[in-house]
Amino acid sequence: MNALENIRVVLVGTLYTGNVGSSCRAMANMGIRHLRLAAPNLQNSWEEGERLAVHATDILANREQFATFEEAVADCVAVVGTTAREGLYRQHVKAPRACAGELLALAAQGPVAIVFGREDKGLLNEEIAQCTHLLRIPVDEGYTSINLSQAVLITCYELFTAAGDYVLPREKAPPAPQAQKRQLMKNWAQMLEDIRFMKSEQADHFMQGFQRVFSRGVFTRDDAALLLGVARQASWCARQLAENGAAETAANTGQG
Amino acid sequence: MNALENIRVVLVGTLYTGNVGSSCRAMANMGIRHLRLAAPNLQNSWEEGERLAVHATDILANREQFATFEEAVADCVAVVGTTAREGLYRQHVKAPRACAGELLALAAQGPVAIVFGREDKGLLNEEIAQCTHLLRIPVDEGYTSINLSQAVLITCYELFTAAGDYVLPREKAPPAPQAQKRQLMKNWAQMLEDIRFMKSEQADHFMQGFQRVFSRGVFTRDDAALLLGVARQASWCARQLAENGAAETAANTGQG
Repeated sequence: MNALENIRVVLVGTLYTGNVGSSCRAMANMGIRHLRLAAPNLQNSWEEGERLAVHATDILANREQFATFEEAVADCVAVVGTTAREGLYRQHVKAPRACAGELLALAAQGPVAIVFGREDKGLLNEEIAQCTHLLRIPVDEGYTSINLSQAVLITCYELFTAAGDYVLPREKAPPAPQAQKRQLMKNWAQMLEDIRFMKSEQADHFMQGFQRVFSRGVFTRDDAALLLGVARQASWCARQLAENGAAETAANTGQG
Repeated sequence: MNALENIRVVLVGTLYTGNVGSSCRAMANMGIRHLRLAAPNLQNSWEEGERLAVHATDILANREQFATFEEAVADCVAVVGTTAREGLYRQHVKAPRACAGELLALAAQGPVAIVFGREDKGLLNEEIAQCTHLLRIPVDEGYTSINLSQAVLITCYELFTAAGDYVLPREKAPPAPQAQKRQLMKNWAQMLEDIRFMKSEQADHFMQGFQRVFSRGVFTRDDAALLLGVARQASWCARQLAENGAAETAANTGQG
Protein backbone atom coordinates (compact mmCIF):
# COMPACT_ATOMS: atom_id res chain seq x y z
CA MET A 1 0.00 0.00 0.00
CA ASN A 2 1.39 3.32 -1.10
CA ALA A 3 0.62 5.85 1.64
CA LEU A 4 0.32 8.62 -0.96
CA GLU A 5 -2.86 6.94 -2.24
CA ASN A 6 -4.51 7.84 1.05
CA ILE A 7 -3.74 11.54 0.85
CA ARG A 8 -6.78 13.72 0.14
CA VAL A 9 -6.07 17.27 -0.98
CA VAL A 10 -9.04 19.31 0.29
CA LEU A 11 -9.54 22.82 -1.11
CA VAL A 12 -11.95 24.89 0.98
CA GLY A 13 -13.99 27.77 -0.45
CA THR A 14 -11.73 28.11 -3.49
CA LEU A 15 -12.40 31.15 -5.69
CA TYR A 16 -10.59 30.46 -8.98
CA THR A 17 -10.72 27.37 -11.17
CA GLY A 18 -7.18 28.10 -12.38
CA ASN A 19 -5.86 27.40 -8.90
CA VAL A 20 -7.80 24.12 -8.82
CA GLY A 21 -6.35 23.11 -12.20
CA SER A 22 -2.79 24.08 -11.25
CA SER A 23 -3.21 22.14 -8.01
CA CYS A 24 -4.25 19.04 -9.99
CA ARG A 25 -1.08 19.24 -12.05
CA ALA A 26 1.06 19.77 -8.94
CA MET A 27 -0.59 16.77 -7.28
CA ALA A 28 0.02 14.58 -10.32
CA ASN A 29 3.67 15.63 -10.41
CA MET A 30 3.95 14.40 -6.84
CA GLY A 31 2.01 11.16 -7.18
CA ILE A 32 -1.06 12.33 -5.24
CA ARG A 33 -4.36 11.80 -7.03
CA HIS A 34 -7.39 12.47 -4.81
CA LEU A 35 -8.90 15.95 -4.85
CA ARG A 36 -11.82 17.18 -2.79
CA LEU A 37 -13.56 20.55 -2.99
CA ALA A 38 -15.35 21.74 0.14
CA ALA A 39 -17.93 24.51 -0.31
CA PRO A 40 -16.26 25.89 -3.45
CA ASN A 41 -17.02 29.51 -4.23
CA LEU A 42 -15.85 29.55 -7.83
CA GLN A 43 -15.87 32.90 -9.65
CA ASN A 44 -14.96 31.72 -13.14
CA SER A 45 -15.65 28.88 -15.55
CA TRP A 46 -13.88 25.51 -15.61
CA GLU A 47 -12.24 26.36 -18.90
CA GLU A 48 -9.23 27.90 -17.17
CA GLY A 49 -9.08 25.11 -14.61
CA GLU A 50 -8.98 22.47 -17.32
CA ARG A 51 -6.36 24.34 -19.28
CA LEU A 52 -4.03 24.63 -16.29
CA ALA A 53 -4.51 21.01 -15.23
CA VAL A 54 -2.83 20.10 -18.56
CA HIS A 55 -2.33 16.33 -18.37
CA ALA A 56 -3.92 16.00 -14.92
CA THR A 57 -7.49 16.55 -16.09
CA ASP A 58 -8.34 13.06 -14.78
CA ILE A 59 -7.70 14.29 -11.24
CA LEU A 60 -9.92 17.28 -11.93
CA ALA A 61 -12.66 15.11 -13.45
CA ASN A 62 -12.55 12.62 -10.56
CA ARG A 63 -12.78 15.30 -7.85
CA GLU A 64 -15.25 14.81 -5.03
CA GLN A 65 -17.34 17.76 -3.93
CA PHE A 66 -18.81 18.43 -0.48
CA ALA A 67 -21.13 21.12 0.80
CA THR A 68 -19.13 21.69 3.97
CA PHE A 69 -15.65 21.39 5.42
CA GLU A 70 -16.92 18.88 7.99
CA GLU A 71 -18.28 16.51 5.35
CA ALA A 72 -15.13 16.75 3.25
CA VAL A 73 -12.94 15.44 6.11
CA ALA A 74 -15.42 13.16 7.87
CA ASP A 75 -13.75 9.86 6.86
CA CYS A 76 -10.19 11.04 7.53
CA VAL A 77 -7.90 9.76 10.31
CA ALA A 78 -6.01 13.05 10.35
CA VAL A 79 -7.02 16.55 9.24
CA VAL A 80 -4.01 18.68 8.42
CA GLY A 81 -4.66 22.40 8.05
CA THR A 82 -2.29 24.72 6.25
CA THR A 83 -1.86 28.31 7.37
CA ALA A 84 0.33 31.25 6.49
CA ARG A 85 -0.58 33.04 9.69
CA GLU A 86 0.42 32.66 13.28
CA GLY A 87 -1.75 33.41 16.27
CA LEU A 88 -4.95 32.00 17.71
CA TYR A 89 -5.19 28.21 17.47
CA ARG A 90 -2.05 28.20 15.40
CA GLN A 91 0.62 27.68 18.06
CA HIS A 92 1.35 24.07 17.18
CA VAL A 93 2.18 24.58 13.52
CA LYS A 94 5.01 22.56 12.05
CA ALA A 95 6.97 22.80 8.81
CA PRO A 96 5.78 20.28 6.20
CA ARG A 97 9.17 18.60 6.19
CA ALA A 98 9.14 18.10 9.95
CA CYS A 99 5.69 16.54 9.76
CA ALA A 100 5.78 14.53 6.52
CA GLY A 101 6.93 11.24 8.05
CA GLU A 102 4.24 11.27 10.71
CA LEU A 103 1.56 12.09 8.12
CA LEU A 104 2.66 9.24 5.88
CA ALA A 105 2.52 6.85 8.84
CA LEU A 106 -1.04 7.98 9.44
CA ALA A 107 -1.88 7.69 5.73
CA ALA A 108 -0.76 4.05 5.85
CA GLN A 109 -3.72 3.54 8.20
CA GLY A 110 -6.47 5.59 6.58
CA PRO A 111 -7.33 8.72 4.57
CA VAL A 112 -5.44 11.86 5.58
CA ALA A 113 -6.86 15.26 4.58
CA ILE A 114 -4.45 18.06 3.72
CA VAL A 115 -6.62 21.16 3.83
CA PHE A 116 -6.01 24.44 2.01
CA GLY A 117 -8.12 27.55 2.64
CA ARG A 118 -9.47 30.38 0.50
CA GLU A 119 -7.15 32.44 -1.72
CA ASP A 120 -8.03 35.64 0.16
CA LYS A 121 -8.41 34.61 3.80
CA GLY A 122 -7.20 31.07 4.22
CA LEU A 123 -8.90 28.77 6.74
CA LEU A 124 -11.31 30.26 9.26
CA ASN A 125 -10.67 29.92 12.99
CA GLU A 126 -13.48 27.38 13.36
CA GLU A 127 -11.92 25.28 10.57
CA ILE A 128 -8.44 25.52 12.11
CA ALA A 129 -9.95 24.36 15.38
CA GLN A 130 -11.07 21.11 13.73
CA CYS A 131 -7.63 20.23 12.42
CA THR A 132 -5.54 17.55 14.12
CA HIS A 133 -2.31 18.97 12.66
CA LEU A 134 -1.26 22.38 11.33
CA LEU A 135 1.37 23.06 8.70
CA ARG A 136 3.04 26.31 7.82
CA ILE A 137 5.30 26.45 4.79
CA PRO A 138 8.56 28.30 5.52
CA VAL A 139 8.47 31.61 3.63
CA ASP A 140 10.39 34.84 3.61
CA GLU A 141 9.06 37.47 6.02
CA GLY A 142 9.02 39.98 3.17
CA TYR A 143 6.25 38.15 1.32
CA THR A 144 4.43 35.44 3.24
CA SER A 145 1.36 35.04 1.03
CA ILE A 146 1.88 32.04 -1.18
CA ASN A 147 -0.32 31.13 -4.15
CA LEU A 148 -2.79 28.30 -3.44
CA SER A 149 -1.43 25.86 -6.04
CA GLN A 150 2.13 26.67 -4.94
CA ALA A 151 1.19 25.75 -1.35
CA VAL A 152 -0.38 22.52 -2.63
CA LEU A 153 2.79 21.79 -4.58
CA ILE A 154 5.22 22.24 -1.71
CA THR A 155 3.11 20.21 0.69
CA CYS A 156 2.69 17.38 -1.83
CA TYR A 157 6.40 17.58 -2.70
CA GLU A 158 7.37 17.09 0.93
CA LEU A 159 5.04 14.09 1.25
CA PHE A 160 6.29 12.64 -2.04
CA THR A 161 9.97 13.00 -1.19
CA ALA A 162 9.39 11.63 2.31
CA ALA A 163 7.62 8.65 0.76
CA GLY A 164 10.84 7.95 -1.11
CA ASP A 165 8.84 6.83 -4.08
CA TYR A 166 11.12 8.36 -6.61
CA VAL A 167 14.38 7.15 -8.03
CA LEU A 168 16.90 9.73 -9.08
CA PRO A 169 18.63 8.84 -12.30
CA ARG A 170 21.96 7.20 -11.74
CA GLU A 171 25.23 8.19 -13.25
CA LYS A 172 25.59 5.53 -15.91
CA ALA A 173 29.37 5.57 -16.17
CA PRO A 174 30.88 3.86 -13.12
CA PRO A 175 33.24 5.90 -10.95
CA ALA A 176 36.92 5.61 -11.79
CA PRO A 177 38.78 3.17 -9.50
CA GLN A 178 41.81 4.45 -7.65
CA ALA A 179 44.24 2.47 -9.80
CA GLN A 180 42.95 4.18 -12.94
CA LYS A 181 43.28 7.57 -11.26
CA ARG A 182 46.87 6.79 -10.27
CA GLN A 183 47.62 5.76 -13.85
CA LEU A 184 46.08 9.02 -15.00
CA MET A 185 48.30 11.07 -12.69
CA LYS A 186 51.38 9.13 -13.80
CA ASN A 187 50.66 9.49 -17.52
CA TRP A 188 49.78 13.15 -17.16
CA ALA A 189 52.99 13.85 -15.25
CA GLN A 190 54.95 12.26 -18.08
CA MET A 191 52.98 14.14 -20.73
CA LEU A 192 53.39 17.48 -18.96
CA GLU A 193 57.13 16.97 -18.96
CA ASP A 194 57.05 15.84 -22.59
CA ILE A 195 55.29 18.99 -23.71
CA ARG A 196 57.55 21.10 -21.42
CA PHE A 197 54.70 22.34 -19.29
CA MET A 198 56.84 21.53 -16.26
CA LYS A 199 60.24 20.19 -15.36
CA SER A 200 60.48 16.92 -13.47
CA GLU A 201 61.56 18.67 -10.25
CA GLN A 202 58.32 20.66 -10.39
CA ALA A 203 56.18 17.55 -10.79
CA ASP A 204 55.17 17.20 -7.14
CA HIS A 205 53.92 20.77 -7.04
CA PHE A 206 52.00 20.69 -10.30
CA MET A 207 50.57 17.21 -9.89
CA GLN A 208 48.97 18.27 -6.62
CA GLY A 209 47.13 20.88 -8.62
CA PHE A 210 45.92 18.36 -11.18
CA GLN A 211 45.03 15.93 -8.44
CA ARG A 212 42.83 18.66 -7.00
CA VAL A 213 41.19 19.42 -10.36
CA PHE A 214 40.44 15.78 -11.03
CA SER A 215 39.13 15.13 -7.53
CA ARG A 216 36.29 17.57 -7.71
CA GLY A 217 33.04 15.63 -7.53
CA VAL A 218 32.49 12.17 -8.92
CA PHE A 219 35.05 11.17 -11.47
CA THR A 220 34.04 8.36 -13.80
CA ARG A 221 35.93 5.77 -15.81
CA ASP A 222 34.90 7.66 -18.94
CA ASP A 223 36.34 10.87 -17.53
CA ALA A 224 39.62 9.15 -16.79
CA ALA A 225 39.70 7.45 -20.21
CA LEU A 226 39.18 10.79 -21.92
CA LEU A 227 42.03 12.44 -20.05
CA LEU A 228 44.32 9.45 -20.57
CA GLY A 229 43.67 9.86 -24.30
CA VAL A 230 44.77 13.49 -24.12
CA ALA A 231 47.98 12.52 -22.35
CA ARG A 232 48.78 9.82 -24.89
CA GLN A 233 48.24 12.09 -27.84
CA ALA A 234 50.08 15.11 -26.43
CA SER A 235 53.02 12.90 -25.51
CA TRP A 236 53.07 11.45 -29.00
CA CYS A 237 53.14 14.95 -30.38
CA ALA A 238 56.00 15.97 -28.13
CA ARG A 239 58.04 12.84 -28.97
CA GLN A 240 57.65 13.49 -32.68
CA LEU A 241 58.90 16.99 -32.12
CA ALA A 242 61.90 15.77 -30.14
CA GLU A 243 62.79 13.19 -32.76
CA ASN A 244 62.77 15.89 -35.37
CA GLY A 245 65.27 17.82 -33.32
CA ALA A 246 63.18 20.91 -33.21
CA ALA A 247 62.62 20.93 -29.49
CA GLU A 248 66.11 22.04 -28.57
CA THR A 249 66.19 24.96 -30.92
CA ALA A 250 62.75 26.34 -30.20
CA ALA A 251 62.11 25.53 -26.57
CA ASN A 252 59.19 27.35 -25.07
CA THR A 253 59.75 28.54 -21.55
CA GLY A 254 56.61 27.09 -20.05
CA GLN A 255 53.73 28.57 -18.12
CA GLY A 256 54.60 32.26 -18.43
CA MET B 1 26.14 38.54 3.36
CA ASN B 2 23.04 36.50 2.73
CA ALA B 3 23.89 33.88 0.10
CA LEU B 4 20.36 34.08 -1.29
CA GLU B 5 21.15 37.60 -2.52
CA ASN B 6 23.60 36.07 -4.97
CA ILE B 7 21.09 33.70 -6.53
CA ARG B 8 20.08 34.67 -10.08
CA VAL B 9 16.97 32.96 -11.42
CA VAL B 10 17.55 32.76 -15.17
CA LEU B 11 14.58 31.95 -17.40
CA VAL B 12 15.62 30.92 -20.91
CA GLY B 13 13.37 31.36 -23.95
CA THR B 14 10.26 31.71 -21.81
CA LEU B 15 6.99 31.75 -23.77
CA TYR B 16 4.38 33.08 -21.33
CA THR B 17 4.47 36.20 -19.16
CA GLY B 18 2.20 34.47 -16.63
CA ASN B 19 4.96 32.01 -15.82
CA VAL B 20 7.41 34.89 -15.37
CA GLY B 21 4.99 36.65 -13.01
CA SER B 22 4.25 33.50 -11.01
CA SER B 23 7.98 32.86 -10.77
CA CYS B 24 8.50 36.37 -9.36
CA ARG B 25 5.97 35.68 -6.62
CA ALA B 26 7.52 32.30 -5.86
CA MET B 27 10.97 33.90 -5.66
CA ALA B 28 9.71 36.61 -3.29
CA ASN B 29 8.09 33.98 -1.07
CA MET B 30 11.51 32.35 -0.78
CA GLY B 31 13.61 35.49 -0.29
CA ILE B 32 15.23 35.40 -3.75
CA ARG B 33 15.00 38.65 -5.67
CA HIS B 34 17.12 38.68 -8.84
CA LEU B 35 15.48 37.63 -12.10
CA ARG B 36 17.14 37.38 -15.49
CA LEU B 37 15.49 36.64 -18.81
CA ALA B 38 17.69 35.12 -21.51
CA ALA B 39 16.41 35.34 -25.09
CA PRO B 40 12.76 35.51 -24.00
CA ASN B 41 10.24 34.40 -26.63
CA LEU B 42 7.13 35.88 -25.06
CA GLN B 43 3.83 35.14 -26.77
CA ASN B 44 1.55 37.38 -24.71
CA SER B 45 1.50 40.79 -23.08
CA TRP B 46 2.95 41.68 -19.68
CA GLU B 47 -0.54 42.27 -18.31
CA GLU B 48 -0.87 38.63 -17.22
CA GLY B 49 2.68 38.54 -15.89
CA GLU B 50 2.09 41.62 -13.74
CA ARG B 51 -1.20 40.24 -12.46
CA LEU B 52 0.36 36.93 -11.37
CA ALA B 53 3.39 38.58 -9.77
CA VAL B 54 0.87 40.13 -7.29
CA HIS B 55 3.07 41.82 -4.66
CA ALA B 56 6.34 40.83 -6.34
CA THR B 57 6.06 43.29 -9.24
CA ASP B 58 9.31 44.92 -8.06
CA ILE B 59 11.18 41.73 -8.96
CA LEU B 60 9.49 41.76 -12.37
CA ALA B 61 10.29 45.45 -12.90
CA ASN B 62 13.93 45.01 -11.88
CA ARG B 63 14.53 42.02 -14.17
CA GLU B 64 17.65 42.00 -16.32
CA GLN B 65 17.33 40.90 -19.92
CA PHE B 66 20.01 39.31 -22.10
CA ALA B 67 20.08 38.39 -25.77
CA THR B 68 21.69 35.01 -25.14
CA PHE B 69 22.07 32.31 -22.51
CA GLU B 70 25.84 32.89 -22.51
CA GLU B 71 25.53 36.57 -21.64
CA ALA B 72 22.97 35.87 -18.92
CA VAL B 73 25.36 33.61 -17.01
CA ALA B 74 28.73 35.14 -17.93
CA ASP B 75 29.44 36.61 -14.47
CA CYS B 76 28.27 33.54 -12.55
CA VAL B 77 30.56 31.23 -10.60
CA ALA B 78 28.13 28.35 -11.02
CA VAL B 79 25.51 27.69 -13.69
CA VAL B 80 22.87 25.31 -12.44
CA GLY B 81 20.60 23.84 -15.09
CA THR B 82 17.26 22.28 -14.30
CA THR B 83 16.03 19.36 -16.34
CA ALA B 84 13.08 17.00 -16.26
CA ARG B 85 14.73 14.59 -18.63
CA GLU B 86 17.36 11.93 -18.36
CA GLY B 87 19.82 10.87 -20.97
CA LEU B 88 22.74 12.32 -22.84
CA TYR B 89 24.79 14.86 -20.87
CA ARG B 90 22.36 14.59 -17.96
CA GLN B 91 23.95 11.76 -16.01
CA HIS B 92 25.19 13.83 -13.11
CA VAL B 93 21.89 15.40 -12.08
CA LYS B 94 21.16 15.83 -8.39
CA ALA B 95 18.01 16.51 -6.42
CA PRO B 96 17.74 20.17 -5.34
CA ARG B 97 17.83 19.17 -1.68
CA ALA B 98 21.04 17.19 -2.12
CA CYS B 99 22.68 20.14 -3.84
CA ALA B 100 21.29 23.16 -1.95
CA GLY B 101 24.09 23.42 0.62
CA GLU B 102 26.81 23.32 -2.00
CA LEU B 103 25.03 25.95 -4.10
CA LEU B 104 24.69 28.28 -1.11
CA ALA B 105 28.38 27.89 -0.37
CA LEU B 106 29.12 28.96 -3.94
CA ALA B 107 26.63 31.81 -3.70
CA ALA B 108 28.56 33.11 -0.70
CA GLN B 109 31.43 33.70 -3.13
CA GLY B 110 29.73 35.02 -6.24
CA PRO B 111 26.59 35.04 -8.39
CA VAL B 112 25.01 31.62 -8.95
CA ALA B 113 22.63 31.15 -11.89
CA ILE B 114 19.72 28.77 -11.52
CA VAL B 115 18.58 28.21 -15.08
CA PHE B 116 15.11 27.14 -16.22
CA GLY B 117 14.38 26.26 -19.84
CA ARG B 118 11.47 26.76 -22.18
CA GLU B 119 7.95 25.64 -21.21
CA ASP B 120 7.77 23.25 -24.15
CA LYS B 121 11.26 21.82 -24.50
CA GLY B 122 13.34 22.87 -21.51
CA LEU B 123 17.03 23.56 -21.95
CA LEU B 124 18.75 22.58 -25.19
CA ASN B 125 21.67 20.15 -25.18
CA GLU B 126 24.13 22.95 -25.93
CA GLU B 127 22.78 24.89 -22.93
CA ILE B 128 22.92 21.83 -20.68
CA ALA B 129 26.52 21.38 -21.77
CA GLN B 130 27.41 24.81 -20.38
CA CYS B 131 26.00 24.08 -16.95
CA THR B 132 28.31 23.32 -14.05
CA HIS B 133 25.55 21.59 -12.08
CA LEU B 134 22.30 19.93 -13.05
CA LEU B 135 19.19 19.63 -10.92
CA ARG B 136 16.20 17.41 -11.38
CA ILE B 137 13.20 17.90 -9.13
CA PRO B 138 11.90 14.56 -7.86
CA VAL B 139 8.57 13.92 -9.55
CA ASP B 140 6.21 11.01 -10.01
CA GLU B 141 6.92 8.89 -13.07
CA GLY B 142 3.27 9.22 -14.07
CA TYR B 143 3.58 12.95 -14.78
CA THR B 144 7.09 14.33 -14.92
CA SER B 145 6.39 17.64 -16.66
CA ILE B 146 6.26 20.34 -14.01
CA ASN B 147 5.04 23.90 -14.63
CA LEU B 148 7.85 26.46 -14.98
CA SER B 149 6.90 28.59 -11.97
CA GLN B 150 6.36 25.42 -9.89
CA ALA B 151 9.91 24.33 -10.75
CA VAL B 152 11.18 27.79 -9.78
CA LEU B 153 9.28 27.56 -6.50
CA ILE B 154 10.62 24.16 -5.43
CA THR B 155 14.19 25.06 -6.30
CA CYS B 156 13.99 28.40 -4.46
CA TYR B 157 12.24 26.70 -1.54
CA GLU B 158 15.08 24.22 -1.15
CA LEU B 159 17.65 27.02 -1.24
CA PHE B 160 15.63 29.10 1.22
CA THR B 161 15.13 26.28 3.72
CA ALA B 162 18.77 25.22 3.41
CA ALA B 163 19.87 28.83 4.01
CA GLY B 164 18.00 28.75 7.31
CA ASP B 165 20.54 26.64 9.13
CA TYR B 166 23.45 26.24 6.83
CA VAL B 167 27.03 27.03 7.87
CA LEU B 168 29.01 27.86 4.80
CA PRO B 169 32.32 26.10 4.21
CA ARG B 170 34.60 28.19 2.04
CA GLU B 171 36.89 27.17 -0.76
CA LYS B 172 39.96 29.41 -0.51
CA ALA B 173 40.52 29.82 -4.23
CA PRO B 174 37.64 31.76 -5.79
CA PRO B 175 35.44 29.79 -8.17
CA ALA B 176 36.05 30.26 -11.88
CA PRO B 177 33.55 32.57 -13.60
CA GLN B 178 31.68 31.23 -16.59
CA ALA B 179 33.58 33.42 -19.07
CA GLN B 180 36.89 31.87 -17.98
CA LYS B 181 35.41 28.40 -18.32
CA ARG B 182 34.21 29.18 -21.83
CA GLN B 183 37.71 30.35 -22.70
CA LEU B 184 39.04 27.10 -21.28
CA MET B 185 36.71 25.02 -23.46
CA LYS B 186 37.62 27.07 -26.52
CA ASN B 187 41.37 26.81 -25.99
CA TRP B 188 41.14 23.12 -25.20
CA ALA B 189 39.16 22.44 -28.34
CA GLN B 190 41.88 24.16 -30.37
CA MET B 191 44.63 22.30 -28.54
CA LEU B 192 42.92 18.94 -28.98
CA GLU B 193 42.77 19.54 -32.70
CA ASP B 194 46.38 20.75 -32.72
CA ILE B 195 47.62 17.59 -31.08
CA ARG B 196 45.32 15.47 -33.32
CA PHE B 197 43.31 14.11 -30.43
CA MET B 198 40.18 14.88 -32.42
CA LYS B 199 39.11 16.27 -35.77
CA SER B 200 37.14 19.50 -35.85
CA GLU B 201 33.93 17.69 -36.87
CA GLN B 202 34.22 15.63 -33.68
CA ALA B 203 34.66 18.70 -31.48
CA ASP B 204 31.02 18.93 -30.36
CA HIS B 205 31.06 15.35 -29.17
CA PHE B 206 34.38 15.44 -27.36
CA MET B 207 33.96 18.87 -25.83
CA GLN B 208 30.72 17.75 -24.18
CA GLY B 209 32.84 15.11 -22.50
CA PHE B 210 35.43 17.61 -21.29
CA GLN B 211 32.68 19.97 -20.21
CA ARG B 212 31.37 17.13 -18.06
CA VAL B 213 34.79 16.39 -16.58
CA PHE B 214 35.45 20.01 -15.72
CA SER B 215 31.98 20.53 -14.26
CA ARG B 216 32.31 18.00 -11.52
CA GLY B 217 32.16 19.91 -8.26
CA VAL B 218 33.56 23.38 -7.66
CA PHE B 219 36.00 24.56 -10.25
CA THR B 220 38.29 27.39 -9.20
CA ARG B 221 40.12 30.12 -11.07
CA ASP B 222 43.35 28.28 -10.26
CA ASP B 223 41.97 25.07 -11.76
CA ALA B 224 41.06 26.90 -14.93
CA ALA B 225 44.43 28.68 -15.10
CA LEU B 226 46.24 25.36 -14.73
CA LEU B 227 44.30 23.73 -17.56
CA LEU B 228 44.67 26.79 -19.77
CA GLY B 229 48.42 26.43 -19.27
CA VAL B 230 48.28 22.82 -20.45
CA ALA B 231 46.38 23.84 -23.57
CA ARG B 232 48.85 26.60 -24.38
CA GLN B 233 51.86 24.39 -23.99
CA ALA B 234 50.45 21.39 -25.87
CA SER B 235 49.38 23.65 -28.71
CA TRP B 236 52.84 25.18 -28.84
CA CYS B 237 54.29 21.71 -29.01
CA ALA B 238 51.99 20.70 -31.86
CA ARG B 239 52.71 23.87 -33.82
CA GLN B 240 56.43 23.29 -33.54
CA LEU B 241 55.92 19.80 -34.83
CA ALA B 242 53.86 21.00 -37.77
CA GLU B 243 56.41 23.64 -38.68
CA ASN B 244 59.07 20.98 -38.72
CA GLY B 245 57.05 19.02 -41.23
CA ALA B 246 57.00 15.88 -39.13
CA ALA B 247 53.26 15.75 -38.61
CA GLU B 248 52.40 14.73 -42.14
CA THR B 249 54.82 11.83 -42.26
CA ALA B 250 54.12 10.34 -38.85
CA ALA B 251 50.48 11.11 -38.12
CA ASN B 252 49.08 9.27 -35.19
CA THR B 253 45.56 7.97 -35.71
CA GLY B 254 44.09 9.33 -32.49
CA GLN B 255 42.39 7.80 -29.49
CA GLY B 256 42.72 4.11 -30.35
